[in-house]
Amino acid sequence: MLGGTAATAALALTTPARAAVATPRVERWGMHEIVLKGPASGNPFDDIRLSAIFVCGTVQIDVSGFYDGDGTYRIRFSPPSLGRWDWTTGSNVAALDARTGRFDSIPPRPDNHGPVRVTRDGYHFAYADGTPYRPVGTTAYSWALQSDARCAQTLATLKAAPFNKMRMCVFPNVTSVATNPFVRTGGGPRDWNSTRFDPDYFRRFEDRIRRLGELGIEADVILFHPYDKLRGYSAMSRADDERYVRYVAARFGAYRNVWWAMANEYDIVEGKTVDDWDHLFEVLVAADPHDRLRSIHQLNVYYDHRKPWITHASVQHGAAVLDDGRVHPHRNFAQKAVIFDEVIYEGNSDKRWARLTGEQLVERFWWGTLGGAYVGHGEVFSDDGNPDISWLGQGGSLRGTSPPRLAFLRHILDSAPSPGIDPIQQFWDYHLGGRDFTWYLKYFGNSRPTKWDVALPTRAADPHPDYRIDVIDTWDMTITPVAGVFRMVQRDEYDVHDPARPTIALPGKPYIAVRIMRV
Amino acid sequence: MLGGTAATAALALTTPARAAVATPRVERWGMHEIVLKGPASGNPFDDIRLSAIFVCGTVQIDVSGFYDGDGTYRIRFSPPSLGRWDWTTGSNVAALDARTGRFDSIPPRPDNHGPVRVTRDGYHFAYADGTPYRPVGTTAYSWALQSDARCAQTLATLKAAPFNKMRMCVFPNVTSVATNPFVRTGGGPRDWNSTRFDPDYFRRFEDRIRRLGELGIEADVILFHPYDKLRGYSAMSRADDERYVRYVAARFGAYRNVWWAMANEYDIVEGKTVDDWDHLFEVLVAADPHDRLRSIHQLNVYYDHRKPWITHASVQHGAAVLDDGRVHPHRNFAQKAVIFDEVIYEGNSDKRWARLTGEQLVERFWWGTLGGAYVGHGEVFSDDGNPDISWLGQGGSLRGTSPPRLAFLRHILDSAPSPGIDPIQQFWDYHLGGRDFTWYLKYFGNSRPTKWDVALPTRAADPHPDYRIDVIDTWDMTITPVAGVFRMVQRDEYDVHDPARPTIALPGKPYIAVRIMRV
Repeated sequence: MLGGTAATAALALTTPARAAVATPRVERWGMHEIVLKGPASGNPFDDIRLSAIFVCGTVQIDVSGFYDGDGTYRIRFSPPSLGRWDWTTGSNVAALDARTGRFDSIPPRPDNHGPVRVTRDGYHFAYADGTPYRPVGTTAYSWALQSDARCAQTLATLKAAPFNKMRMCVFPNVTSVATNPFVRTGGGPRDWNSTRFDPDYFRRFEDRIRRLGELGIEADVILFHPYDKLRGYSAMSRADDERYVRYVAARFGAYRNVWWAMANEYDIVEGKTVDDWDHLFEVLVAADPHDRLRSIHQLNVYYDHRKPWITHASVQHGAAVLDDGRVHPHRNFAQKAVIFDEVIYEGNSDKRWARLTGEQLVERFWWGTLGGAYVGHGEVFSDDGNPDISWLGQGGSLRGTSPPRLAFLRHILDSAPSPGIDPIQQFWDYHLGGRDFTWYLKYFGNSRPTKWDVALPTRAADPHPDYRIDVIDTWDMTITPVAGVFRMVQRDEYDVHDPARPTIALPGKPYIAVRIMRV
Repeated sequence: MLGGTAATAALALTTPARAAVATPRVERWGMHEIVLKGPASGNPFDDIRLSAIFVCGTVQIDVSGFYDGDGTYRIRFSPPSLGRWDWTTGSNVAALDARTGRFDSIPPRPDNHGPVRVTRDGYHFAYADGTPYRPVGTTAYSWALQSDARCAQTLATLKAAPFNKMRMCVFPNVTSVATNPFVRTGGGPRDWNSTRFDPDYFRRFEDRIRRLGELGIEADVILFHPYDKLRGYSAMSRADDERYVRYVAARFGAYRNVWWAMANEYDIVEGKTVDDWDHLFEVLVAADPHDRLRSIHQLNVYYDHRKPWITHASVQHGAAVLDDGRVHPHRNFAQKAVIFDEVIYEGNSDKRWARLTGEQLVERFWWGTLGGAYVGHGEVFSDDGNPDISWLGQGGSLRGTSPPRLAFLRHILDSAPSPGIDPIQQFWDYHLGGRDFTWYLKYFGNSRPTKWDVALPTRAADPHPDYRIDVIDTWDMTITPVAGVFRMVQRDEYDVHDPARPTIALPGKPYIAVRIMRV
């Protein structure tokens, strides 16, 4: 959660005084905010440079500030380590320059695990304190841009839902209450000044980020998308794009639950080439001292996820998580964590991209899981024939049948070894994920097996532990232990089994998994 | 074929004389060889620099020569265009320096289509004259290093086989007759001088390349492999690797049927990092003025096929061509032509990597084809219990049941549109390949459907041609036309069908495909 932390930060002193005021205390991975008063004339967004250097021991971090309107400037910093942090501002105007201060970064409360990072192996995620983080995300593109009432409803829904990541656009993509990130210059949709942000818009947005953080939900912030041709926020100049990326990096980046999604369906944003996107990543990396996670989402043309600024692959595909064997190449090529952020949505639409059954969506989650990747949820239900008003667009309430099953999947994931589930001998098509000789998951998708010949890939020289097995009904959400222990001996050169019980019975239903755990 | 061309090249004059000798004539894409006499003392491989600049109009190509023993130096050049080519040598020794000559590049004979290139779309292959080239390759790693009798047997086998590409190692990986690419210095396996090539070894090898060319077979020349730890050719120094890459590039590169496979299973070559491989590609690109196709083959860790020196992805995977949906991510990530050069072999081995049935191997070819990629063959049959003596290792004769079916597949491929078969709406899992509104292939793998509901992805605004349909038995090698024409009308927002005949009967056997062709 971020709530208490933000409250602490709001108390941060902004004067350089060395008076007998207690040194502010900020949780590690919380936020310290420096608030300064400066010029309100001209265009502060372009005219004023402001940053602060934060120093703790030998660590020195340069953090840009941003203009928040009405002559108010802010510098936001989330301390990555404990200890005394001293800061000094730099600016091209005297009122903001050479201000100094300090704060103490103190141990975080138990519910603050820090930002999510990619694990050392490259394929999974964990909080900075080492707590595993297994993404089970959803998408409500413009939920943050709706009325306070609707936002409150969304947050209440999320509080009871299984999701720990939310994909959300900065720029509106559907009917929204907040639609003006830039200062208006007239009544037409294109009458806005790309050089002047509207602080209210961003204040609202970061409030939503903060509230997600209070629920333990990562905010996967989508910077660009191709859908708003009316207003044209995706068709700004390179200089405007750079200003915007730097602004959101300075403004949002200190929230520890922020991830950067450079674009949704980058490849159908008109007028931007891959070189443009690469450039904006370079701008973002330079502008984000907090080094939040970074990816980009495509429609047809896969971005090159091996590029060094990409922390994990964000992929859209309607059919790639129908089989773990389709997931594996994504890991093999990206050599990074893979999140299938869009796999078609649950819904009742007449559009094929929004009419999966709950069963179909949950099946996709399981295949993605088995393949060593992660999957995202979305739903589009419409009573009134307007598919543009939906959870996917504005948030609100959930009507689908998948969320309880995704909560159940999270429960299963919590039992998996750290850092996560990896493919087991993908070359040989075992349909197994987990970790060798320790913990395995097998999944049968929509087939209806009545038995499974228990065999695990193991060579003679490998460990031969005993195992227990659970039969998991991923739809009915039951876990049924198979009685007794499986004592494995070599069956042939490649596999072990228990000759006393070579087979287990399965219920002949779809969506069955088995979990095999070392005793 | 290359035979006649090489004979022409052997007549090339090597003196700078301007005497009344007819200007040599060399087919376009044939080979012109300059033969010069020079020093035989010292170590010519290291001491002598030799190259020639070939000029035709505004085109100027710098080609390195190589030392062929006994004071003989050769420079080989394959003219990419028609016309008069003038050449001038450069060397650090006077005997080889500033020699000049010329030849005329004349129209090729009908069976000379030039080198194979990647097509403009990036995903397929064609000869330089535009003739489509659809790889149906095989592997006989050390066939070129066997006795002349065994090589002759291999060539006779190939003459009657469907294969148009051969993967073959420069360095021996199995029992071979020729095992010494370097001059011996003693009796032990490591007693060789990495700075001195044995010209006999390379002369034999290039003779095999040439003979493959005569059969219309591309030589996919594997420069490194991890298998010969006894002799250690994969564990040379960087300088030795560079010398070797430059030597084979100068020596073999003018044969128009040469492809470069930098390594087999690069990721298990001990002592070489990805940086080393990248470096060797840079050396190869600089050393190969003929710009032959380049790739690298892995066991577990996919190389980054988007790197600019990679012309096509060469992939090994035991399970990636069991479904076109597993093939698609390979194309999506590589954004280049994909060849699954190793997908487990047909054979009777007790090793699982060499005991596919013919049916299983042919199925892999069809799924790869449907996915818009290409697949490679290999077989390991053993009567005497020695799996190291096989087609895969030494060539010889073929015993498997797949080759006739691969000939049949080539026949089907010949009917496909140029440049080749692409996935059709992979996002929606149609299991279709081909080209929209023109030519489709659908494949049912080892399922046994008795009917197919004829539907093709087509929007209302798309073309709505009539189609004919063939039912193809890919194993029994029959093509059975369905009588009459299918007159397509919109069935729903996404698909068309013919309401008068919405279904066709299928034979209820495995390995059935249907081909749908615009009338």
